[in-house]
Amino acid sequence: MLVVMKPHASQAEIEAVSERIRSLGLAPHAIPGAQRVAIGITGNKGPLEPAMFAAMPGVADAIRVSQPFKLVSREVKEEDTVIDVGGARIGGTAIAVMAGPCSVESREQILEVARAVKQHGATFLRGGAFKPRTSPYEFQGLGEEGLKLLALAREATGLKVVTEVMDADDLQVCTEYADVLQVGARNMQNFTLLRKLGAVRKPVLLKRGPSATIKELLMAAEYVLSSGNYQVALCERGIRTFETMTRNTLDLNAVPVLKALSHLPVVVDPSHGIGLRAHVPAMARAGIAAGADGIIVEVHPCPEKALSDGHQSLAIPEFADLMRQVRIIAGAIGRPVQGLA
Amino acid sequence: MLVVMKPHASQAEIEAVSERIRSLGLAPHAIPGAQRVAIGITGNKGPLEPAMFAAMPGVADAIRVSQPFKLVSREVKEEDTVIDVGGARIGGTAIAVMAGPCSVESREQILEVARAVKQHGATFLRGGAFKPRTSPYEFQGLGEEGLKLLALAREATGLKVVTEVMDADDLQVCTEYADVLQVGARNMQNFTLLRKLGAVRKPVLLKRGPSATIKELLMAAEYVLSSGNYQVALCERGIRTFETMTRNTLDLNAVPVLKALSHLPVVVDPSHGIGLRAHVPAMARAGIAAGADGIIVEVHPCPEKALSDGHQSLAIPEFADLMRQVRIIAGAIGRPVQGLA
Amino acid sequence: MLVVMKPHASQAEIEAVSERIRSLGLAPHAIPGAQRVAIGITGNKGPLEPAMFAAMPGVADAIRVSQPFKLVSREVKEEDTVIDVGGARIGGTAIAVMAGPCSVESREQILEVARAVKQHGATFLRGGAFKPRTSPYEFQGLGEEGLKLLALAREATGLKVVTEVMDADDLQVCTEYADVLQVGARNMQNFTLLRKLGAVRKPVLLKRGPSATIKELLMAAEYVLSSGNYQVALCERGIRTFETMTRNTLDLNAVPVLKALSHLPVVVDPSHGIGLRAHVPAMARAGIAAGADGIIVEVHPCPEKALSDGHQSLAIPEFADLMRQVRIIAGAIGRPVQGLA
Amino acid sequence: MLVVMKPHASQAEIEAVSERIRSLGLAPHAIPGAQRVAIGITGNKGPLEPAMFAAMPGVADAIRVSQPFKLVSREVKEEDTVIDVGGARIGGTAIAVMAGPCSVESREQILEVARAVKQHGATFLRGGAFKPRTSPYEFQGLGEEGLKLLALAREATGLKVVTEVMDADDLQVCTEYADVLQVGARNMQNFTLLRKLGAVRKPVLLKRGPSATIKELLMAAEYVLSSGNYQVALCERGIRTFETMTRNTLDLNAVPVLKALSHLPVVVDPSHGIGLRAHVPAMARAGIAAGADGIIVEVHPCPEKALSDGHQSLAIPEFADLMRQVRIIAGAIGRPVQGLA
Repeated sequence: MLVVMKPHASQAEIEAVSERIRSLGLAPHAIPGAQRVAIGITGNKGPLEPAMFAAMPGVADAIRVSQPFKLVSREVKEEDTVIDVGGARIGGTAIAVMAGPCSVESREQILEVARAVKQHGATFLRGGAFKPRTSPYEFQGLGEEGLKLLALAREATGLKVVTEVMDADDLQVCTEYADVLQVGARNMQNFTLLRKLGAVRKPVLLKRGPSATIKELLMAAEYVLSSGNYQVALCERGIRTFETMTRNTLDLNAVPVLKALSHLPVVVDPSHGIGLRAHVPAMARAGIAAGADGIIVEVHPCPEKALSDGHQSLAIPEFADLMRQVRIIAGAIGRPVQGLA
Repeated sequence: MLVVMKPHASQAEIEAVSERIRSLGLAPHAIPGAQRVAIGITGNKGPLEPAMFAAMPGVADAIRVSQPFKLVSREVKEEDTVIDVGGARIGGTAIAVMAGPCSVESREQILEVARAVKQHGATFLRGGAFKPRTSPYEFQGLGEEGLKLLALAREATGLKVVTEVMDADDLQVCTEYADVLQVGARNMQNFTLLRKLGAVRKPVLLKRGPSATIKELLMAAEYVLSSGNYQVALCERGIRTFETMTRNTLDLNAVPVLKALSHLPVVVDPSHGIGLRAHVPAMARAGIAAGADGIIVEVHPCPEKALSDGHQSLAIPEFADLMRQVRIIAGAIGRPVQGLA
Repeated sequence: MLVVMKPHASQAEIEAVSERIRSLGLAPHAIPGAQRVAIGITGNKGPLEPAMFAAMPGVADAIRVSQPFKLVSREVKEEDTVIDVGGARIGGTAIAVMAGPCSVESREQILEVARAVKQHGATFLRGGAFKPRTSPYEFQGLGEEGLKLLALAREATGLKVVTEVMDADDLQVCTEYADVLQVGARNMQNFTLLRKLGAVRKPVLLKRGPSATIKELLMAAEYVLSSGNYQVALCERGIRTFETMTRNTLDLNAVPVLKALSHLPVVVDPSHGIGLRAHVPAMARAGIAAGADGIIVEVHPCPEKALSDGHQSLAIPEFADLMRQVRIIAGAIGRPVQGLA
Repeated sequence: MLVVMKPHASQAEIEAVSERIRSLGLAPHAIPGAQRVAIGITGNKGPLEPAMFAAMPGVADAIRVSQPFKLVSREVKEEDTVIDVGGARIGGTAIAVMAGPCSVESREQILEVARAVKQHGATFLRGGAFKPRTSPYEFQGLGEEGLKLLALAREATGLKVVTEVMDADDLQVCTEYADVLQVGARNMQNFTLLRKLGAVRKPVLLKRGPSATIKELLMAAEYVLSSGNYQVALCERGIRTFETMTRNTLDLNAVPVLKALSHLPVVVDPSHGIGLRAHVPAMARAGIAAGADGIIVEVHPCPEKALSDGHQSLAIPEFADLMRQVRIIAGAIGRPVQGLA
């Protein structure tokens, strides 16, 4: 159930509706919109009766929500969510480009990449400090030292920092240094972490698990929103199929489906998605053409020497070329690229 | 092994190489190119010694082919294959659009669709006369009557006809009426059918099986080429994954991978690929952006009343809109749409 | 809809029901049972009214069939189908063991294997004469010569012959020599072939496609039954998943599900299913424990030298050991192994 | 690399080898065995030279380990690991049975189930206090209250308690109350949690993720072992495939493959694996026949009223019947069931 308030409903009217909801043993979630406030209701077992709310002062409408996901649903909020990260945006007309190395490796590496991706039109710098690795014997990231280097690169370039938070343990330190907190694919259903991210005042980039359904991705986002953080972007980064020529199978079908079902912005990760450096540009173009609001791309000054994911990272000239292609495709469908005036 | 002849090698020199190959108990496959002839060798168990051929008159080079697929490989033929169907082309710079109903249902239906898709820029008319259906109790197509209606629509519009051949039994009658013979996804590894198509003088549109790897698709095409028919286009039409919100998962990763590995043209089927009418345009745009040489789309005058696949068929105005979008994306990457001057 | 006749319903009463069905534009399918005849009705769009048949003379009951598969369903025929192949059985209490090489390679090979598997308790000899191979350059089987060798081995041992029919072209010659016609996994939805097998008087062993759902397997069997051949056994042989350590993923979940939904016997193929020689016995034991009515196993006198599938074929002593294990597991659940008195 | 010490190697000799390993910048992992100690070496990039260790006093052999997983590998430890939980065992000849409700719901519920499953031969009580749920609006478990009820049931019955730890936050409280800590399928690659479990003195039951490969499961276990906890049991609980008739696809192929590659015990979860109450016994039988060392089964006094997973939970009489079947299959392959004298 969603109670939509009139455009000029007073704070007292909004509170009265919330109180009525609480009195039924349910939870109200006020969702501020550009024009008016809506109040999502969760906790009910069966359908609620719209008449309970429709006649209250300041209420425009009371709508039943048919999907198991509520707050992330377009039924509940029709207009697109735009996440504003100090001027850089995820969502809205302009395409957001996030780029950087898989792992932060050194001061020189991160500064070189940051300056280059900024120059070619990225507005976000990605880089891992805490790395989830299949093997305990592989490079696990620089930890807090990596976060400091990301912050340094932000100072040097103005790029906003996106980094993965692997666990509740890292949450505080990641929140301190980063602008956007990434939830990795393997953690998409780490419900404890999702709930804690609901209490954080930083946007979340939530990656789809390699075998998660679209519905499960939306339910994972629902954990964050229902815990109080509405700044969530969804990221398609490849699912696991029987194919062995590609690392994963970037599922671009998810892009229009997610955009239709949810108001949250959708980002595509062609680097992990196909996992083959030569084909990252094709998948980035296709992602934009399918309707994605942004891309996140791995770039390394010297992919052959990367401590992780070198086979799917672009060298800097390759990234420059990718951006030319992205600009053309985005332009064709009437979308500018944020960092390219 | 591939023996590349010099640009002006004589017929006698070519024949001498072929004879040498046969004398080793192997099979030569002469592959005519724009500039020069290459001769593929198959039947060898281990690698051959290039020196056996390199010194022969008229030979430019002898190259080892590393992949299990030979004749379809770019190692063997670097330039793109362009299939010319009486002026309409599959492959090359211009995007080919194939459109029409899932099944031919009546004279009125097929003529109405044919005229409409022609008007909006298709150059091929698709339509099923022999329909593979999961249930024996579902509509199985009009058979030869359907083929006659397709031929009638060709006469009325000039569109080239693409139709599925389900079995060797239908091969002769399909060859008689159709311009391009489609092999359905379920038949991708019907090796008897593939071999018979090798002996036919009509182009083949080979659909990828729902759980076929990219390599298996290329090996299936290899059956047709090695049986003598080099006019094969590959079609990605969705693979089977765990996702249930979409009918299939259109695997656009296959597009750049196939284009890199093979010289054959690649067509994308967004209708079966995502299986949801509302999202066909997004996947068509993405397919073109990923590098596909064409699209094949289901269109029906009244999708709600279609005898099959109505949920994924576009109504005519939707198709018109799709074509506007396709034209824009194709134009952005420097590719015209064939039927749109 | 299924019309169940009384145990002693007369032929005239059965015919009257069939006539009533035909008069409605629908198709009757008389299904003879041990106790009484049932008549399946197909061709209806919506549900039929049981009252139309319930009051007719000789009718015991008229039952709505809820599944899209009809004639294969337990709703239509409660008792297990037992296929009798000249004394050797598929289905019923006793476990059927089918064993032999992937491909028939020579007179010596097939005779040696046949004698050995007979001695250790097989009652069916499997062996391929027409081989579907991913690559056109691999060994494609001996063709009719292979069928003759299988017939020779039958004469020498009394084993019944199971062999794959790849295509309608091979159907006549396979029917002539074989006792059971196998439909390979890649052909599970070759609907033309399935329909032709409906007209043949030989039992069919229908293998599940590598990405076919359980429902699709049952619908494929429905093609054969609805075309007139009720002697069909279903075979689980491994599905395609993301796992790469095993060739396929033998889906034993299908065994109890198929046994619950259908009256047809279920055979398990651990050789293709896991594709690793060392683990074939474990999967054979598990298949029997899950409720399979039989197993089909690849055995070769010298797996290292097999022209196909050597990595998953058992040597003869390994087969002997497998049979000891199968006997023990089968015995534990009260099922004898047919060839072991 | 694994350095195998002689049976009576002295503590000083073991320490000298460890010191040599550290001096090379690598990490020694002493693995105590029944007969002798082995020392695993990790941290090396390339292969090490056995001669560096083979001549040291007390060293029997130095063996290269070919797999990326080391400490879990049979190459490193040939004999089966048996986990002893105060007399109840996981691994070894006798089959371990773990049974109980999906979620602990009340004192009455857990006591009733615990007494019943104990009576019918279980030695471990399973029950969730912290529940990972796809939706934030579903029942999330009783938390610490649930753990107290499990402890109460242990006191009443002597059963050992297995419960899921969802996160590092719950680790201390779960460790306090439980005997075996379960890592859920969604958490299989929660590397932070895995490392923390390496420091705990309680056995771990590690569930395979729904799209995790067998290798990834072993690498996840490697995280726990390499962090110091060698008491790990692996659990196959169903993978995600395209099949929709079953909840998951229990992958019994994993059982013989895991038993061959690793010395760790393997448990099968037929309840989640197939997700259909009627077919849990068939999959339990098959799991035992495939070589599993134990099963974990959901049992509820009244499945229809369960707060979670009722459709796959057995009622108590069904569990009693299951145990009769398990006993028969286990007995046939020479394995007793632990709780059944």
